[in-house]
Amino acid sequence: MQIAHPYLLFLGDARDALAAKTGLGIVDWRREWCLGQMRLPGCKADAKLPDMSIAEAAEKGARTLVIGVVNAGGVLPESWVGEIVAALDAGLDVAAGLHTRLGSIPAIAEAAARNGRKLFDVRHSSERFATGKGDKRPGLRLLTVGTDCSVGKKYTALALERGMREAGFDADFKATGQTGVFISGRGVAIDAVVADFISGAVEWISPAADPNHWDLIEGQGSLFHPSFAGVSLGLLHGAQPDAFVVCHEPTRRTMRGVATPLPTIGDVIAMTVQLGRLTNPAIRCVGIAVNTEALSEEEARAELERTARVYGLPATDPVRFGVAPIVEEIRARFG
Amino acid sequence: MQIAHPYLLFLGDARDALAAKTGLGIVDWRREWCLGQMRLPGCKADAKLPDMSIAEAAEKGARTLVIGVVNAGGVLPESWVGEIVAALDAGLDVAAGLHTRLGSIPAIAEAAARNGRKLFDVRHSSERFATGKGDKRPGLRLLTVGTDCSVGKKYTALALERGMREAGFDADFKATGQTGVFISGRGVAIDAVVADFISGAVEWISPAADPNHWDLIEGQGSLFHPSFAGVSLGLLHGAQPDAFVVCHEPTRRTMRGVATPLPTIGDVIAMTVQLGRLTNPAIRCVGIAVNTEALSEEEARAELERTARVYGLPATDPVRFGVAPIVEEIRARFG
Repeated sequence: MQIAHPYLLFLGDARDALAAKTGLGIVDWRREWCLGQMRLPGCKADAKLPDMSIAEAAEKGARTLVIGVVNAGGVLPESWVGEIVAALDAGLDVAAGLHTRLGSIPAIAEAAARNGRKLFDVRHSSERFATGKGDKRPGLRLLTVGTDCSVGKKYTALALERGMREAGFDADFKATGQTGVFISGRGVAIDAVVADFISGAVEWISPAADPNHWDLIEGQGSLFHPSFAGVSLGLLHGAQPDAFVVCHEPTRRTMRGVATPLPTIGDVIAMTVQLGRLTNPAIRCVGIAVNTEALSEEEARAELERTARVYGLPATDPVRFGVAPIVEEIRARFG
Repeated sequence: MQIAHPYLLFLGDARDALAAKTGLGIVDWRREWCLGQMRLPGCKADAKLPDMSIAEAAEKGARTLVIGVVNAGGVLPESWVGEIVAALDAGLDVAAGLHTRLGSIPAIAEAAARNGRKLFDVRHSSERFATGKGDKRPGLRLLTVGTDCSVGKKYTALALERGMREAGFDADFKATGQTGVFISGRGVAIDAVVADFISGAVEWISPAADPNHWDLIEGQGSLFHPSFAGVSLGLLHGAQPDAFVVCHEPTRRTMRGVATPLPTIGDVIAMTVQLGRLTNPAIRCVGIAVNTEALSEEEARAELERTARVYGLPATDPVRFGVAPIVEEIRARFG
């Protein structure tokens, strides 16, 4: 599966920026892949791309209409169907990460068939995976893990891709979530894989590679989250990381969507090492990524300084201060 | 979902007893639900039930044809389709645990619709689950866990159901695998649930209950198995067990299907307590179930005596010596 770019981002009638966060995430990391945005009347999101019609985008060479917006329930509203059909008729593929499969809507399925275009449902992998084997494979791997969901695991892996490439490493981001799949043009939304194949799917996402190549694997959930720890563990075992970075949001008190208190960064380091050893006995933590958005700059610097001291590891906010300290740690530990 | 009995067991052209282990497992635990068996020419398995035709079974009141055999790859061979259609035409429902959905075969889908009969694909739950919440719910729960796959977790949970009921407990087996679903007539094959919903599906399987009621939940995989540990962890968090029993096969050296060495029983106790505390801080081990089939009676007794002494817990082989010591431990700890 490879989603062709350039993209036309469909932001629909997004009720706010949060509803369009998939689209905005793509622009953050792959601005050069995005020709323009298409918005319906009432759209409250703006990816700061040229607004354009499907015809205009097709003429400028757009290859895929990417649905960069969700509405409540993850379903595909009736009002989007006409635009999706028009995109297919204009020669574009269509990619979405909705619970509803694009091809389950007859008008869309027919338009795709009629025009010989592809439909990508990134939440529904059509790939048949093997179960995970756990055998060590060549190449180096880093996994971003978290004290909770939504603490910056994707952002940190992408920032490390940029930072490590600038520092001369051979490094690729590997997506495991739907926005990540659009950003990299490939990958699997791991939370949508059938449970028996979680670790096998990650082995497929990050296959054997050159000994000095780094795969920077986007983590999901948290080993301490009662809803998603199974996903996080299957991902850890399949990734068999040599290195991991713990992502954390210091003002959060309970885990997303449940009443469970947040673990400490130390809890996550210890548990990740303990469980990760099953498929890579040499696993080690190489840094801490703290989302300091809710703190002033002074508070943020104090929090990072304190965190680095307590754990004896580089601590940074990748958005605010970059990932250089973590890249340096990786060079020091792995050369 | 409730699969109606009595069952007619379809053993097809099973090449050996192992290929029919689902059917044989149903007879082991629900002989009274099984009217007869139906075998095709060349069938090498025998569930020791009366052989009967579909017409004969229908006349005697059979409600469901249960596919109790697998062939390589879990697909549905062409040679079974005619019999399945005949069963539907005779007024039976059909239940299977194959990768291929029954309804994906047009002749079967049409026959089901024509006769108003149900098709049960226990490896493909049609239920929409919520994500797990992790909130403690009333009722008591026991989970069987293992040092590996295929070490007796289902058998132990079923033996405990029988033993606890005989001892006056209010206790129900809760299935999480396909054979278990046929044995209990309901449940979910948890390894076929989409990864995000593992713990939520288990919360659905074992909902809030009377404070003295025991759900005896069939475990899957092992926290130490590199292919399936994610499933095992999601199951542990969703089950939030008050008690667990460790199942073990003492002659096995590497885990099923992979090169990973087996953990010790002590490793499994410690890890299950450590991880299980997230959703039930009072979790405790109440016994060890050892599959001693490969040992002589003398060796088996010595192994159980040694295991009980090392871990300070009752150790038994449920098949060979029954579950009384574990039931006594449950009474002593939970009254």
